[in-house]
Order: sequence, then structure tokens, then C-alpha cells
Amino acid sequence: MISYDVVNDRKRRKISKILEGYGKRVQYSVFESILARSDFTKMYHELLAVDIDAETDSIYFYSICSNCEKKKVVIGRKREYLEINDAAVIVL
Amino acid sequence: MISYDVVNDRKRRKISKILEGYGKRVQYSVFESILARSDFTKMYHELLAVDIDAETDSIYFYSICSNCEKKKVVIGRKREYLEINDAAVIVL
Repeated sequence: MISYDVVNDRKRRKISKILEGYGKRVQYSVFESILARSDFTKMYHELLAVDIDAETDSIYFYSICSNCEKKKVVIGRKREYLEINDAAVIVL
Repeated sequence: MISYDVVNDRKRRKISKILEGYGKRVQYSVFESILARSDFTKMYHELLAVDIDAETDSIYFYSICSNCEKKKVVIGRKREYLEINDAAVIVL
């Protein structure tokens, strides 16, 4: 799971665009994604290059294994997401 | 980890207030929290009672075990969070 908090509009849009190429938006600034290690590294460096303001902004990358994923709970609108398979490196 | 996306200002503030009583805000609408099962249940029902709009709004609860927590990565501003101990039921 990837969540971001970015003040600058242009940079926030850039991050959103990058993430749309790697995962599924489940909330305004929260994405879920199943990525092989190499893809995660590529995405990470693309996001790093956006050069967010380290004082005010942040991008959090939560790794969620299949066990943790099973415990996920949602109140309200649940966006369907990619199927979890244990083979993939799960970086949600 | 708990993230929320709520359109209605009053309801969004209410959710934020409830979560401040159970965890630490790491991003505008993302909280981390270490909770015993009973506290999670209590928090969950308080949030449920806010009655968010199931068409537009959502609250996601991601369970993150100590292994997944170790893999967490942050770009930018990292808010320190409570220490993880395996004894607690970890609902981050």
C-alpha cells in the first residue's frame, strides 16, 4: 500500500500519475499494488525523482503480506483490487 | 494502518478526532496505531457510528505484522511512531 501527502499541486499530480502506472487507486491518495522487487525499485526511483519537500511531504510504502492482506477491513466503498498471489512480492 | 477518504467535512473531522484517540497521524488522512483486539473493536464501532456515505467514502484498516512493518519505506517526512512489540495485536 502506498499513501502520499504532498502540498505542491504539480508534484502531487506527478506522483499520482506515476502510481497509476503501477497500481490501483483505492482512496484519493492511497494506492494498492502488487509488484515484483524490480518494479518496486523502478517505481521508487521515479517517485524519488519528483523531489518532494522533505519538510512537509511524505510517501509511505507499506509492505502487506498475504496474511496481513486477509485481515484488511473496509468501512464504506471498497475498491476491488488485484488478486493476491503468494508468488509475487507483495508491496501494497 | 488506517486511512480514510470522506467527502463530508463534519464526518471527516469526527473520524479524525476518533482516530487521534487510538493512534498517531502519519499523514493527513493516515494513522498508525497499535491496538489490542478489544480496542480495535471499540474503535471500529465508533467509526461505524459516524455513518459515512458508502457510495463515496471509505475507511481502510490495514493489519501490518512486525515483519511487514520492518519493510516499510518512507520518502520525505517520516513521523516517528509507537514502538512495535510482537505481543500487541498490531493493527496499523
